[in-house]
Amino acid sequence: MRNIKIVLEYDGTNYSGYQKQIKFKTIQGTLEKVLSEICKEEIEVIGCSRTDSGVHAKGYVANFFTESNIPPEKFSFAINQKLPKDIVILESKEVDMNFHSRFSCRGKTYSYTIINRKFPSAILNNYCYHVSKELDIEKMISASKLLIGTKDFAAFRNTGTEVSSTVRTITDIVINKDKNFIKIYVTGDGFLYNMVRIIVGTLIEIGLCRKSSTIIDDAFKENDRNVLGKTAPAQGLCLEEVFY
Amino acid sequence: MRNIKIVLEYDGTNYSGYQKQIKFKTIQGTLEKVLSEICKEEIEVIGCSRTDSGVHAKGYVANFFTESNIPPEKFSFAINQKLPKDIVILESKEVDMNFHSRFSCRGKTYSYTIINRKFPSAILNNYCYHVSKELDIEKMISASKLLIGTKDFAAFRNTGTEVSSTVRTITDIVINKDKNFIKIYVTGDGFLYNMVRIIVGTLIEIGLCRKSSTIIDDAFKENDRNVLGKTAPAQGLCLEEVFY
Repeated sequence: MRNIKIVLEYDGTNYSGYQKQIKFKTIQGTLEKVLSEICKEEIEVIGCSRTDSGVHAKGYVANFFTESNIPPEKFSFAINQKLPKDIVILESKEVDMNFHSRFSCRGKTYSYTIINRKFPSAILNNYCYHVSKELDIEKMISASKLLIGTKDFAAFRNTGTEVSSTVRTITDIVINKDKNFIKIYVTGDGFLYNMVRIIVGTLIEIGLCRKSSTIIDDAFKENDRNVLGKTAPAQGLCLEEVFY
Repeated sequence: MRNIKIVLEYDGTNYSGYQKQIKFKTIQGTLEKVLSEICKEEIEVIGCSRTDSGVHAKGYVANFFTESNIPPEKFSFAINQKLPKDIVILESKEVDMNFHSRFSCRGKTYSYTIINRKFPSAILNNYCYHVSKELDIEKMISASKLLIGTKDFAAFRNTGTEVSSTVRTITDIVINKDKNFIKIYVTGDGFLYNMVRIIVGTLIEIGLCRKSSTIIDDAFKENDRNVLGKTAPAQGLCLEEVFY
């Protein structure tokens, strides 16, 4: 038995998220089908996170156990030949039997892309969120500093998943602009359900000068989801990198 | 009668190129249908260039004559509401009756995007060309200098369109790399059929060290298409900007 780690890139547009569901096409379901064929045994893929429907990934990490003796670095070629074009294995290698893509994870970086101009993008519509009014990037950068650190992010999540603790550490938020595209990179040790999208929705409200950055402190003090901005739409979100 | 200039962005993936064709969906055909509805008269759209099937545009310029008295800056909103999501009007304004998007054009910038890594992109497959072997960018930059200037580019075209002269001026080629993506920007006063894609295909052969940059001089001397690289695929090409 061997433990194989794979790094994936995928376009989440046409999938009902990462996690397997009986009636819907998912990343996990698609991967398991192809891997089971290749390994000639039933494969269960362990993923680092459950990305939502429409969310993308450039460096998603997963692992699986197999009796197959295909050389690990050959897995990527074999899998890519059978996968649809919107899922690509970038890397495959054998790892220690104790490696678990979710439990061994020390942190992740997500990116969120906004197109900030009068009209939406004709080309990258599925990969960014359109904000037509001008965003004040300086205000967003300054507000983002209030999120850095180890804090109780209870207000920064939507209901849906039970967790034992809502304390998380955000180590870094980088916001930059290239022409009309604004990219927000959020790095932390872990994220609550919809946490990055709520952070982005909140920074957008602040960037539009609809709300002041004090809402962030209020949310921490009052643990109140409602003082924050809307959950930004899924298609702007991308899992960039996972740290071990 | 007024002359309206529009600037378009489009995703060429699902179109049989810019130019109207009876049996196929094209950018021009789609635009004319929507504009004719909005203006309540038959509209003929004059485009700045005939982009091929699969080629994209971020700053395509077109113009049309109309009796409609919709305020020019309102056209973009009205047209975008009726256009499919993969065509967006970025700007509309009234221009001099003599303005002709093709004949008045002084130059254009095209970009070509290459993804240079072992595996193709899961996300941007329709917007870049995958080259799996490592490209030597320095060699490509140095070879690109040989193309700058006013020259007879007869070797740099595929058969298809009759032109009175094959002399063109390339003013600038910029090549840069961001992670695994290589972008080549070519600016000139005009381009022959497939000229940018042949330039890119040639620079790729040189970057792969399969051919030396002397093939460019040979092509100019011998007017021979065959000494150059293949025509790079359509999906990497994008019309960035048109100058007047």
